[in-house]
Amino acid sequence: MAKQEEVILLDFWASMYGMKVRIALAEKGVSYQYREEDLRNKSHLLSNMNPVHKKIPVLIHNGKPICESTIIVEYIDEVWKDKAPLFPSDSYGKARARFWADFIDKKVFLIGRTMCMTIGEEQEAARKECIYSLKLMEEELGDKPYLGGESFGYLDLCLIPIYSRFHAYKTYGGMNIEQECPKLMAWAKRCLNKESVSNSLPDQLKVLGFVQHLRKKYGLEE
Amino acid sequence: MAKQEEVILLDFWASMYGMKVRIALAEKGVSYQYREEDLRNKSHLLSNMNPVHKKIPVLIHNGKPICESTIIVEYIDEVWKDKAPLFPSDSYGKARARFWADFIDKKVFLIGRTMCMTIGEEQEAARKECIYSLKLMEEELGDKPYLGGESFGYLDLCLIPIYSRFHAYKTYGGMNIEQECPKLMAWAKRCLNKESVSNSLPDQLKVLGFVQHLRKKYGLEE
Repeated sequence: MAKQEEVILLDFWASMYGMKVRIALAEKGVSYQYREEDLRNKSHLLSNMNPVHKKIPVLIHNGKPICESTIIVEYIDEVWKDKAPLFPSDSYGKARARFWADFIDKKVFLIGRTMCMTIGEEQEAARKECIYSLKLMEEELGDKPYLGGESFGYLDLCLIPIYSRFHAYKTYGGMNIEQECPKLMAWAKRCLNKESVSNSLPDQLKVLGFVQHLRKKYGLEE
Repeated sequence: MAKQEEVILLDFWASMYGMKVRIALAEKGVSYQYREEDLRNKSHLLSNMNPVHKKIPVLIHNGKPICESTIIVEYIDEVWKDKAPLFPSDSYGKARARFWADFIDKKVFLIGRTMCMTIGEEQEAARKECIYSLKLMEEELGDKPYLGGESFGYLDLCLIPIYSRFHAYKTYGGMNIEQECPKLMAWAKRCLNKESVSNSLPDQLKVLGFVQHLRKKYGLEE
């Protein structure tokens, strides 16, 4: 009899970090309980499972918590290793994938937020940096169909959540991705053809509404 | 005939991130060329090898660059896997080690710098946070001889560079580690008994002089 697995994901629908984990679980075909967190009123479970950062996403596997999205995805790839391997198998490929994953987490995701949540010169600087960082990713893609090479892999999964923000980037950041990074847009659409991706990303218009809500909250619009 | 390996480390003597890599290479018994970088006048080699961040440490292995200290250490552990395995072998242990390594990089190392480079209320807040974060590490150590368990491992290597700062923390941060975290101090001394560690860390007084130089540069003392 197969070992009974209990997998719970503490998450928030609009989190790009959470989306990475959702895609990884979908790629591996792992069944799990999804628990939406109210970030203004976090659950005791979240505080207990991630006492240091109290942040989503947290994966709870048979009662044990795993925190931080890149660490969770590596864990998922190792534990459910028989289906859809995500990481490159060679050490240098792994190191390179980890480098870009770190760049996406620390730079690409954050600068997009800054671009949508600022005005004037600060926004202009953020837009330039956002374009620059996406162009770097486009360069890393090159002429391959996926960042992972011939098939969808770890880095594709790490970056594709940004697709959910593209409408907001255009509306509030004045950034036309299709024009600036056409190859990256073609890559994004290729990824979206996968159910593991399309089922894990929220609708762009819903995200747009969320960003508008944040902008109102921070007094950037009425 | 064994394959000819060329290993170069671009580094800066006072960097705690660089120290992690030096210890890992020493643990594995890897011979390498050490190249000190002048951080105010970075070499072309550094800019070429790490064009995105232009930061040390960078390991160049047979012409290929690996950047970011935690990624470099994982790479070293994978490539030279026959000697002194650093990572836990189980997936959960690995995830947990990666979580704390990330906490050390992003929190422990940075808050110590803030503590030494601020004054007044800001410094007091940084000191409290520094003590809190070191006590968390002490809790993770528990009654084990090493963070890695019975023997020196990945997490020990990640945290021990902080020992080089303890004199500066006392002098400029007003923080007495021996008193605040006695078990962590005993752990540090245990680690220092290893040549891989003692040969990779600079003298505390040299680091003290470096911190003093930075404080003068930023107008915190005359």
